[in-house]
Amino acid sequence: MRRIAVMTSGGDSPGMNAAVRAVVRAGVASGLKVYGIRHAYEGLINGEFKRMGPRDVSGILGRGGTILHTARCQEFYEPLGQKAGLTELQTAGINGLVVIGGDGSLEGALALHKKGFPVIGLPGSIDNDIWGTNTSIGVDTALNTILNALDALRDTAASHNRAFLVETMGRQCGYLALMGGILGGAELILIPEVDTGLEEVAQAIDEAYAEGKNHALIVIAEGANLKTTEISKYLEEHPTPYEVRITILGHLQRGGRPTAFDRLLATRMGVRAVEGLLAGESGVMIGLDGRTLTPVPLEEVTGKSRQADLDYFEMAKVLS
Amino acid sequence: MRRIAVMTSGGDSPGMNAAVRAVVRAGVASGLKVYGIRHAYEGLINGEFKRMGPRDVSGILGRGGTILHTARCQEFYEPLGQKAGLTELQTAGINGLVVIGGDGSLEGALALHKKGFPVIGLPGSIDNDIWGTNTSIGVDTALNTILNALDALRDTAASHNRAFLVETMGRQCGYLALMGGILGGAELILIPEVDTGLEEVAQAIDEAYAEGKNHALIVIAEGANLKTTEISKYLEEHPTPYEVRITILGHLQRGGRPTAFDRLLATRMGVRAVEGLLAGESGVMIGLDGRTLTPVPLEEVTGKSRQADLDYFEMAKVLS
Amino acid sequence: MRRIAVMTSGGDSPGMNAAVRAVVRAGVASGLKVYGIRHAYEGLINGEFKRMGPRDVSGILGRGGTILHTARCQEFYEPLGQKAGLTELQTAGINGLVVIGGDGSLEGALALHKKGFPVIGLPGSIDNDIWGTNTSIGVDTALNTILNALDALRDTAASHNRAFLVETMGRQCGYLALMGGILGGAELILIPEVDTGLEEVAQAIDEAYAEGKNHALIVIAEGANLKTTEISKYLEEHPTPYEVRITILGHLQRGGRPTAFDRLLATRMGVRAVEGLLAGESGVMIGLDGRTLTPVPLEEVTGKSRQADLDYFEMAKVLS
Amino acid sequence: MRRIAVMTSGGDSPGMNAAVRAVVRAGVASGLKVYGIRHAYEGLINGEFKRMGPRDVSGILGRGGTILHTARCQEFYEPLGQKAGLTELQTAGINGLVVIGGDGSLEGALALHKKGFPVIGLPGSIDNDIWGTNTSIGVDTALNTILNALDALRDTAASHNRAFLVETMGRQCGYLALMGGILGGAELILIPEVDTGLEEVAQAIDEAYAEGKNHALIVIAEGANLKTTEISKYLEEHPTPYEVRITILGHLQRGGRPTAFDRLLATRMGVRAVEGLLAGESGVMIGLDGRTLTPVPLEEVTGKSRQADLDYFEMAKVLS
Repeated sequence: MRRIAVMTSGGDSPGMNAAVRAVVRAGVASGLKVYGIRHAYEGLINGEFKRMGPRDVSGILGRGGTILHTARCQEFYEPLGQKAGLTELQTAGINGLVVIGGDGSLEGALALHKKGFPVIGLPGSIDNDIWGTNTSIGVDTALNTILNALDALRDTAASHNRAFLVETMGRQCGYLALMGGILGGAELILIPEVDTGLEEVAQAIDEAYAEGKNHALIVIAEGANLKTTEISKYLEEHPTPYEVRITILGHLQRGGRPTAFDRLLATRMGVRAVEGLLAGESGVMIGLDGRTLTPVPLEEVTGKSRQADLDYFEMAKVLS
Repeated sequence: MRRIAVMTSGGDSPGMNAAVRAVVRAGVASGLKVYGIRHAYEGLINGEFKRMGPRDVSGILGRGGTILHTARCQEFYEPLGQKAGLTELQTAGINGLVVIGGDGSLEGALALHKKGFPVIGLPGSIDNDIWGTNTSIGVDTALNTILNALDALRDTAASHNRAFLVETMGRQCGYLALMGGILGGAELILIPEVDTGLEEVAQAIDEAYAEGKNHALIVIAEGANLKTTEISKYLEEHPTPYEVRITILGHLQRGGRPTAFDRLLATRMGVRAVEGLLAGESGVMIGLDGRTLTPVPLEEVTGKSRQADLDYFEMAKVLS
Repeated sequence: MRRIAVMTSGGDSPGMNAAVRAVVRAGVASGLKVYGIRHAYEGLINGEFKRMGPRDVSGILGRGGTILHTARCQEFYEPLGQKAGLTELQTAGINGLVVIGGDGSLEGALALHKKGFPVIGLPGSIDNDIWGTNTSIGVDTALNTILNALDALRDTAASHNRAFLVETMGRQCGYLALMGGILGGAELILIPEVDTGLEEVAQAIDEAYAEGKNHALIVIAEGANLKTTEISKYLEEHPTPYEVRITILGHLQRGGRPTAFDRLLATRMGVRAVEGLLAGESGVMIGLDGRTLTPVPLEEVTGKSRQADLDYFEMAKVLS
Repeated sequence: MRRIAVMTSGGDSPGMNAAVRAVVRAGVASGLKVYGIRHAYEGLINGEFKRMGPRDVSGILGRGGTILHTARCQEFYEPLGQKAGLTELQTAGINGLVVIGGDGSLEGALALHKKGFPVIGLPGSIDNDIWGTNTSIGVDTALNTILNALDALRDTAASHNRAFLVETMGRQCGYLALMGGILGGAELILIPEVDTGLEEVAQAIDEAYAEGKNHALIVIAEGANLKTTEISKYLEEHPTPYEVRITILGHLQRGGRPTAFDRLLATRMGVRAVEGLLAGESGVMIGLDGRTLTPVPLEEVTGKSRQADLDYFEMAKVLS
């Protein structure tokens, strides 16, 4: 192995830059030439390769987003697109690839592996929905962003005796909503893993009032069975003692400087991916298991979605 | 004058606590007894008065929201409600009042003044729409919150070649959107003071792309002639080179720890209000004129809405 | 078991409040009466107990410091002091105690356990020097604070072509300096676990310059073999291409709102401590092992100091 | 006028990048060619000029430090150095210069003006010690950084019943300490403009204790008549009820993302400087007077140091 490449793919997440930096620096330190691929699989097909040295990744450790840019690429889901990408890699003399991204991106990595190209995946996603790892690059930062928002919203909610419906990201995984809700002191949390009724929401708000609270925070995962607007409409028709307001946190959750945790996870994973390629590993994602980085076959990882741990859902009830 | 009271009214804004603290401490230092009125005019009518000493306002200088709580009170718009409030003040032996809030709250203050009760208003609003002052308590903090959001959104926008439509608060005043847009590096800014066409939005996005930018930020005041969803729909039907995403900053803009500027403004205004009451002033709002605090008759202040300075709108074009 | 008490002891660390909240709420949810002990062992001896309900710990999840206050208490190191504390607990009818703190505080807990009183310890310390747990309550927040500082210092260092010597806390453990240095992009890191020579420091700065860097960050643990002033003096006598400046981060590292990680760790540990007391556990500290909370005998924990993981020290060299 | 140049000089301050961006974009919008001079006067003498277009200043609005770098240059204090700089400007065909910096930097600007070269100065300094302007680029950001630090230190001070001595920057001007102290809720503030005795410090701490406070914050300007270590030593010899700790905020105060206020001030001043050069102004600094930007002759500005407003010093006593 002489030349490796790295790309970031799918939705961006804070810490991707730290992973790119680690791949570049660890790769160069091992005597490899390292190339960045811009715009993910789309750029792969178009041959958007750029040689990267240690100075090209200076100062990016603490920056959100990804300097390699990312994109979604329909073409690479097809055999023809995959073949085109493979040809570009071979033409450039590259013989190893690190893909940082979520479920769809790791499927692309698996396709390349099946064609015999050495590839290692790293889990990058704020949603914490990637199978085979305790957490992914970007989750901790997104969770802290959510807590900052909840802390700020509580200021104004408490000043006005209001109930806030706060919608988080997470796709089909309730992790961000559940942890954000527990650690932000929410009165009720709605996640895709557990069905909730509209009356339960109204009841939780009434209980908060009965306990003398001057506000109620309801955190709703975007994938929950009840939609935020649906709840809002119901509460208009079935008024509670609080005025109701909606906040959809949206793409703010993707941005911002990565936390220490995400910088460390991304750095360790980037170094480990280079070691893996040099040791002949392929077709695996580097997952976090407790404190240990462990390769997990991409076959096992893709097509599944990690779910929130329901023990925490029970704990939330004790603590609120 | 022996006893004064202070209330926060209308929408909460960061720095209101600093103003309350200043009124309490300056009042006590001048030998007055100071009372906090909870829940604004509603609390006034209900006699929710609480004696406050210097230690009761310890540690609130840096806290968002308002420890006195706020509320909207329909009843106080009526003469009967106003009379009830006046009676409560007199019964409690209070002979001066400081009202911190926005336009509606200052109208209530004016009503009390007209009934002969000494009252001084302080401008508290994140919207910067209060007439008679350069800026209001809470505006600087809200603006910094908006910049933090725009800085974070640019991370993710630039990583994905996306255009973001970001909606700010501000009611009928474009200040937050205009300043947020200029200082957050937006490509286009829509404010109530200037009508914009849908084609202009599409064109601004196209131009950003033509200039080689990897993102476009469009900041939209909630009171602008075009609504965010309207723009989004138009851009779906008239696609640009960027994917489009919406973020509505919402109530996040009200929360958070007040900045140095807002703490100082609130503190100076709170001290000045006490001095004014002691000097026999009434029926005025303390406004900021350059660096000077100046009393402005409430008659002139109420019923008008400050507008954004269009010179900055021109400056934005030069800078983007 | 009917009544339990909780105290925070030793140096404060962000997240202690979250742990107190969890003990109170989980205790009450299990039918216990819960008491807070103010001022740690000093307060124990003086009987500073206060009954606490769920509302008494409202809004503290995100606050730094500790609402129970903390103190260092020489008296409790002596058998007489310990006996006095025990008597107070028994008089108050308390039959279980949770102690949150560092090494010295856990020694106090062990002393009570040895006298037959049920007690469980939780590791609270920013230094990450507590034996028997992967990390302690407060470490993640302190590390993020250090990164914020390093990111800010790099702005000014790079603008001036300067070398900054940045001193972190950590007592005899290099964790904060090592991780802060790696994740903050330091050129050299000095920790107590590894001796460094003065010439090495000068050489690292020279190398940064030779590589074309416009700044150099040297992170120094307070317990490192070389002291910050010693290095500064040496660099004055042996000038490098950069001007040298010193920043001692100091007590800033203890303050601030706890991160998601610390809030979660503290919450889980607080709940687990109550479960432990109810299950008859005593004389243990709840440690984190991977993702699992595990009781570790206090006998094993006390008197030792956890050290930084030297694998990371090697990784730092690859990455800088 | 066809070509202008811009430099940042002296100590860096947050917002300098925003000023550079404004000069470049406003210059280009007016049909000028704009050059950045790296490393201030040293770079001027060495001809470190670089043509800059609107895209070269993309994304710097929110970044601390200065992309043009800064330096202190002894040589330019001498006529020979000044002549060499002038020659470089003339050789490059540049016929206007914007200098952003503090007192020493503005003296250099004055020297060029006296030699007939058109130059306009902008006040850039966190110390707020520049004569002829209400405030300078960077002051607001530094003040907010100080408040964040004081808010964090109060967490830990209050948990331990401690007195903290916190030293701020400011050279011979007490502004940062005074405003930081007032807005951070300090018990005592020491500034160069007012002499304080050691007994006064001890007394302020004793009074805080007597009032039932669980902490005391003493903010000390680096230029105050008493030095921080001197106070610490005195308090060791004359113990108060609190343990004493020192924190020197140091260069942290220079770093960080500029606030809305500093971005706006810098942007307005940058635009105004270009307008001034085009209108034939020279030998002036653009100062802020209330809300208005006003040219002030450099002759009046240099060699003086702005002082803190003692009215605020009196206000501090009322509020603490």
